Amino acid sequence: MVDLQLEVVAIGGYEEVGRNMTAVNVDGEIIIFDMGLKLDRVLIHEDTDISKMHSLNLIEMGVIPDDTVMKNIEGEVKAIVVSHGHLDHIGAITKLAHRYNAPIIGTPYTIELIKREILSEKKFDVRNPLVTLNAKESIDLTPNLTLEFINITHSIPDSVLPVLHTPYGAIVYGNDFKFDNFPVVGERPDYRAIKKLGKQGVLCMISESTRVDFEGKTPSEKVASDLLKNDLLGADNQSNAVIVTTFSSHIARIKSATEIAEKMGRIPLLIGRSMVKYCGIAEDIGIVKFPENTRMTGDPSAVDRIFRQIMKEGKENYLLIVTGHQGEDGAVLSRMVTDKTPFKFEKYDQVVFSADVIPNPMNAAQRYMLEARLKRLGVRIFKGAHVSGHASKEDHRDMIRWVNPEHIIPSHGDFNLTTAYAKLTEEEGYRLGEDVHLLRNGQSLKFERII
Amino acid sequence: MVDLQLEVVAIGGYEEVGRNMTAVNVDGEIIIFDMGLKLDRVLIHEDTDISKMHSLNLIEMGVIPDDTVMKNIEGEVKAIVVSHGHLDHIGAITKLAHRYNAPIIGTPYTIELIKREILSEKKFDVRNPLVTLNAKESIDLTPNLTLEFINITHSIPDSVLPVLHTPYGAIVYGNDFKFDNFPVVGERPDYRAIKKLGKQGVLCMISESTRVDFEGKTPSEKVASDLLKNDLLGADNQSNAVIVTTFSSHIARIKSATEIAEKMGRIPLLIGRSMVKYCGIAEDIGIVKFPENTRMTGDPSAVDRIFRQIMKEGKENYLLIVTGHQGEDGAVLSRMVTDKTPFKFEKYDQVVFSADVIPNPMNAAQRYMLEARLKRLGVRIFKGAHVSGHASKEDHRDMIRWVNPEHIIPSHGDFNLTTAYAKLTEEEGYRLGEDVHLLRNGQSLKFERII
Amino acid sequence: MVDLQLEVVAIGGYEEVGRNMTAVNVDGEIIIFDMGLKLDRVLIHEDTDISKMHSLNLIEMGVIPDDTVMKNIEGEVKAIVVSHGHLDHIGAITKLAHRYNAPIIGTPYTIELIKREILSEKKFDVRNPLVTLNAKESIDLTPNLTLEFINITHSIPDSVLPVLHTPYGAIVYGNDFKFDNFPVVGERPDYRAIKKLGKQGVLCMISESTRVDFEGKTPSEKVASDLLKNDLLGADNQSNAVIVTTFSSHIARIKSATEIAEKMGRIPLLIGRSMVKYCGIAEDIGIVKFPENTRMTGDPSAVDRIFRQIMKEGKENYLLIVTGHQGEDGAVLSRMVTDKTPFKFEKYDQVVFSADVIPNPMNAAQRYMLEARLKRLGVRIFKGAHVSGHASKEDHRDMIRWVNPEHIIPSHGDFNLTTAYAKLTEEEGYRLGEDVHLLRNGQSLKFERII
Amino acid sequence: MVDLQLEVVAIGGYEEVGRNMTAVNVDGEIIIFDMGLKLDRVLIHEDTDISKMHSLNLIEMGVIPDDTVMKNIEGEVKAIVVSHGHLDHIGAITKLAHRYNAPIIGTPYTIELIKREILSEKKFDVRNPLVTLNAKESIDLTPNLTLEFINITHSIPDSVLPVLHTPYGAIVYGNDFKFDNFPVVGERPDYRAIKKLGKQGVLCMISESTRVDFEGKTPSEKVASDLLKNDLLGADNQSNAVIVTTFSSHIARIKSATEIAEKMGRIPLLIGRSMVKYCGIAEDIGIVKFPENTRMTGDPSAVDRIFRQIMKEGKENYLLIVTGHQGEDGAVLSRMVTDKTPFKFEKYDQVVFSADVIPNPMNAAQRYMLEARLKRLGVRIFKGAHVSGHASKEDHRDMIRWVNPEHIIPSHGDFNLTTAYAKLTEEEGYRLGEDVHLLRNGQSLKFERII
Repeated sequence: MVDLQLEVVAIGGYEEVGRNMTAVNVDGEIIIFDMGLKLDRVLIHEDTDISKMHSLNLIEMGVIPDDTVMKNIEGEVKAIVVSHGHLDHIGAITKLAHRYNAPIIGTPYTIELIKREILSEKKFDVRNPLVTLNAKESIDLTPNLTLEFINITHSIPDSVLPVLHTPYGAIVYGNDFKFDNFPVVGERPDYRAIKKLGKQGVLCMISESTRVDFEGKTPSEKVASDLLKNDLLGADNQSNAVIVTTFSSHIARIKSATEIAEKMGRIPLLIGRSMVKYCGIAEDIGIVKFPENTRMTGDPSAVDRIFRQIMKEGKENYLLIVTGHQGEDGAVLSRMVTDKTPFKFEKYDQVVFSADVIPNPMNAAQRYMLEARLKRLGVRIFKGAHVSGHASKEDHRDMIRWVNPEHIIPSHGDFNLTTAYAKLTEEEGYRLGEDVHLLRNGQSLKFERII
Repeated sequence: MVDLQLEVVAIGGYEEVGRNMTAVNVDGEIIIFDMGLKLDRVLIHEDTDISKMHSLNLIEMGVIPDDTVMKNIEGEVKAIVVSHGHLDHIGAITKLAHRYNAPIIGTPYTIELIKREILSEKKFDVRNPLVTLNAKESIDLTPNLTLEFINITHSIPDSVLPVLHTPYGAIVYGNDFKFDNFPVVGERPDYRAIKKLGKQGVLCMISESTRVDFEGKTPSEKVASDLLKNDLLGADNQSNAVIVTTFSSHIARIKSATEIAEKMGRIPLLIGRSMVKYCGIAEDIGIVKFPENTRMTGDPSAVDRIFRQIMKEGKENYLLIVTGHQGEDGAVLSRMVTDKTPFKFEKYDQVVFSADVIPNPMNAAQRYMLEARLKRLGVRIFKGAHVSGHASKEDHRDMIRWVNPEHIIPSHGDFNLTTAYAKLTEEEGYRLGEDVHLLRNGQSLKFERII
Repeated sequence: MVDLQLEVVAIGGYEEVGRNMTAVNVDGEIIIFDMGLKLDRVLIHEDTDISKMHSLNLIEMGVIPDDTVMKNIEGEVKAIVVSHGHLDHIGAITKLAHRYNAPIIGTPYTIELIKREILSEKKFDVRNPLVTLNAKESIDLTPNLTLEFINITHSIPDSVLPVLHTPYGAIVYGNDFKFDNFPVVGERPDYRAIKKLGKQGVLCMISESTRVDFEGKTPSEKVASDLLKNDLLGADNQSNAVIVTTFSSHIARIKSATEIAEKMGRIPLLIGRSMVKYCGIAEDIGIVKFPENTRMTGDPSAVDRIFRQIMKEGKENYLLIVTGHQGEDGAVLSRMVTDKTPFKFEKYDQVVFSADVIPNPMNAAQRYMLEARLKRLGVRIFKGAHVSGHASKEDHRDMIRWVNPEHIIPSHGDFNLTTAYAKLTEEEGYRLGEDVHLLRNGQSLKFERII
Repeated sequence: MVDLQLEVVAIGGYEEVGRNMTAVNVDGEIIIFDMGLKLDRVLIHEDTDISKMHSLNLIEMGVIPDDTVMKNIEGEVKAIVVSHGHLDHIGAITKLAHRYNAPIIGTPYTIELIKREILSEKKFDVRNPLVTLNAKESIDLTPNLTLEFINITHSIPDSVLPVLHTPYGAIVYGNDFKFDNFPVVGERPDYRAIKKLGKQGVLCMISESTRVDFEGKTPSEKVASDLLKNDLLGADNQSNAVIVTTFSSHIARIKSATEIAEKMGRIPLLIGRSMVKYCGIAEDIGIVKFPENTRMTGDPSAVDRIFRQIMKEGKENYLLIVTGHQGEDGAVLSRMVTDKTPFKFEKYDQVVFSADVIPNPMNAAQRYMLEARLKRLGVRIFKGAHVSGHASKEDHRDMIRWVNPEHIIPSHGDFNLTTAYAKLTEEEGYRLGEDVHLLRNGQSLKFERII
């Protein structure tokens, strides 16, 4: 005869792809999921050094979630739970976490990345305890609340599906994931645990929706590996430089490239500050093992040294794996093509873009300029060796059928994506406003059912 | 001190994708390459039974090449050479070949397909001798002219790159091909032979250009196989019908599907008249070996019988591989969804489109209607498990560099494609009108250089 | 101290463009707004004669609104109110109206069109009283409910903004409209009445959203008239046939064409059954006055006769205004181009499409085939002489600011449009789920505020 | 019995939209048409001050035509003829003209603009005589060559169709033009003169092709004027700032805006350095007469002063017409929105973009950022009040039919446009390589016919 006292607060990521942040309030005990950045808002405000900026300015600019709504939520934050290490999920921690007297909980790789973020922050002093929880493990957050990490696949290692077990049923935080049955790094999704959730009863699933508008199923990372092989082992490139550029955090992709380097008889060279950060940590904590002869260089002067060596010894002995696939100004590839390094491009050198253009006009322009410059130099450009890290429509359908939640809240997208997700749920028998809910940033959903 | 007496006549496929036909006249000895259909012209004229129509009508409608220009070419046709068995390369043989007193030469699979075409023709009686030449073999057509078949990869088995060796140098007919280093059926392209051509001296290469506007390199058929695996082994489909639809002539794709069926514990069932034709011939002549339990059914009454059996025994025991990926009216999939067969779709049955929509509005409409009908029935649709059979820009660049022809003529496309190809040749040092030539249907290029 | 007893029931048009139907229940007195068709669902089911079909089949096919939800609404239907005469607003009357014991109320032109619909219906006998209400007039529907018709502009004459005045405030049914300050037929929108509504207090506005995703303001019909003039008076067409094709119900556009015909020294000829219906009624009831020498022909045999006359006397003496802008199979233009009439196209004859292609693949295909056939005959095609009849984003913003409703429900579109509208309302201070509401077909919104 | 000694040299604009330059060599007397910039090449090389750069660098960057090919052309340059004052036609004069000992000939407005270009050039000293020739006038360039200027319409005043009358027939330089029958500034095209050309015999027409891929006919500038009226007189803007931004050189558009300002009861204010340049000259030489109360301000400090005045006196008293429609960094609108002027935007202020986004990714990004910033401030954005200044497909067809040239060379575009033009000529009976010719930059066409 008591009302259900559970509330989901949509803080960020409910009107955009990016700056994810959600709070779940269970009888006054609050768990926060993710604190991320919205990176393209930064691009609109050029010459912005985020590390020196104050939260309120960043909120006003739309760069980080507007957590001022938390003032209206009665309760105490018990934990900040992060799903994986991408910046749109952890990038706002350095700006927001210090406001909450609560530990930050993530998988080992994610926690290591958060440590680096905290180290490079110049405005705030983040002292929240950092707690490591492995996939397939659980932890009691309070006597009433247990957090479970289910192993999942995504485009960064050590990603999990956090599940909050509450007295009213489980809350599944499905943000982000794909179902990869042939992963290159890590294990397949823990389907058994996911299906078990469905049998035990899930009150609410919060789900990403960034790629729900693609019909079918997202291809496995193995496909990307084959595509990379196709480009690197197929074209006539024996006497030319070969350069791969991809996301620094995409350890599986980078691993594939280093292994193909072996088949090409080339030494894999990871170049770029963030390349070293993400790959270095991954190797340090044993998530990945690159081939013995792999080398990493991030420090600019060391980068220059290695480029001089390459130019002297012959480019054809190396496979360069560099930052800069979006044409970002300071990244290695942009610096290479504008002669800011000792590297010199020659006709028939080969650049493989193992990443899509992130779809906004600023990225499109940067990438266009990068490609225009490469083409002027006669460089051969290869595209398409990429697969997404996000679930497509039929992956989501399986997820819904397996988890079988009473309520669903789509997130990580604006209306175009959250409503595409809502339409999918309608196909599965849900009804808008009844058991599938469109929230906007700052809104919350209270479960007021009589128990 | 004699003018070069070699002429390339662009008959069809120089203003469109389709109805390929080219003649090469060497001192009065004429070799014809391909005689194909332009299929979408047929769609514009509904209710057309091509098999009963006369050549001149079909020419007027733009369905077959306008070979009336041959009247102005002085010389004698010595051979009709076909590159592979797709209808846009062989489909006009039944309408045009009887006009020429010359043998038709092709690889075994292609020749078998031509035999079937001739059998189903109702207007003309085609009695040209059919001559089989294997990849890697040569044949002397006249004392001056030798035909070589170089093994190449494409989306149908037994495809070759025909090369005509003439006293003035070789003529390479590169129409159609891709460079697949991990083919599922057949061998890798004969790179050694291609490079050898370049060293011996090639006077002119005629090259397809249908996909030259895609940057990079076309993915291997192995990628398509992985994508199919991703869809078939990934989604939750244990208790549902699973249907794959692809090109009947795409034996490699069909082979992949039948092998995945084994992993799924299902019996592969090839359904549809043309499915049986292409796959049956391929198996008969030893090009492919499907799993033991594979079954094929083409005859409508047998198809009905098998569907009744499936409905009774349980759809979950079969993997159906059917015709109809473009939503064509009479094809198996369209008949299934409009209840013209005993098959009944149920919610969660799965259809995998392993083919792109051929980009014209009529196909788009048919396919849209097909998908709309499937969705109304709750059928899950999977797309994207496909790769092209045509070379992309960087494949073409390698081809040009290896073959190193004195002259190039792009074909198999309208200006948008042939000029994309011309731009590529400009990057490789060719100049429009000098050594790269844009021909229109009916035009010819004479080589008038002094020897 | 009493709950508000007002409910808006979304019956059709809340998940699609088309089949509009909304019910408003005020203390048990129900007013229905519109009963429309969704035309492209008909195209998916070819060979369908709607006039002979039963409501339940049409509901199941998604062609008409699913009004079976009305069974759950307690109250009595007092009136069926129609906003204007387009089929997506009146086309289901013949299938649904007989179930309700209530009069149908519309403006004179709309009521005349409904009469024709009823006459051609073959399945149901519709005997509801037909009541005429002019723009700027009001009528008491019950002691509590008054209906007001506010004059508005749209792409058909005699369109109104129906407003239901209730004890709880006004309900504005803004479906469909544009703000045209330079209309070709009829008067400018009654801005004074609209602004007055805002001052009196509007409880809820139901608004179309079909074009809210276009930034700026929809151009006036005067622009279309200028564009038509541009095409007709600009190109070199003195000795050729000139044919305009547009919507038969677009009386303003047709009027412009007939007046330009005068400047061209040509006799305007309206050809096609529906052309005669819409234009004939419009002239009969005095909405429009075509030039004296305008002729109309709808009956097929008369059409043939007139075409024979044209061919004999010289096409250059006429401006033909015909049906068939979407390439519809039986329409006049399709029949002309496939030689089903005595009209013969010649090179340089001119066809002006004064209508956009309705964006679905079936229309795209039909129109593509039509144009392909015209081009084969050497006919010159002119496009772009068209403006929309629907409000764009900034028109909607003005509407919202003027009407200032407490609640808003976007309609006439699926999520892509209704959420684009919702985003606009957010810019104006509304909040999703609080005062702007996304309904799906079959859902209703109850106003439960304490008075 | 003498060969025809006439040669057309394609120098720039034959592989791009921009940097137009063509030479015609008649028996050793050379006439150059246009010397233009390719502006987007400048955007790729940021921080470039063109006025200080050397020709060879600009050639290498692809910014100006590569006229080094002129070294191979035997003859003497007799005149540099410019068609109109757009930078893609005159912008390279300051870099290239000094190399030629020849006068520059243009209409009065064009010549005035060239004078300003020369004044702001910092690298080269251009001393070529500047000769004014009015539309409808002719001038003898040499005893053999006469230049005629035919009045034509385009998006800048005083545009002409230069015709070179030679002993071998006329050469028509149709680059750029539209056929506007209701022009806002200047007179209708001189159709009589154009048709007369066709009767006298034209050897070769060089034609722009930038918009030939649009079906139909380009709308008149009157339509743009109506569209502007629609936006400015339609929306609810009485108490808000209203800002129009368009091309500074588009005098007709600016005139329309100033006249609508009168109807709005606002003072028209032209703001921006180039706005003052183009409009000031136009008024000075009597091409246009703006309303009495129109004010112009270009100097930054004066601009600041006027903005302060506006903010004080009330924005609602002015119609601002400013530079910056592409979001260019230093332009007035960009400076306004980034608070670099005393102007402050408020919610509901209105910006009307009377210009399309020039389609390249850099412009798209700049414009996107501009609009994002405006929207954040609540500014209402209006788009679409624009028509092109270039001929569409059917305009070109009329041109070809009227001029009836023996040979045609499409220019001002890459293959996508020049081949679209070529296809049109095929419809009119021309044949590629025979009488319609695709040239690439640096190539030339010799007329070797026997006279």
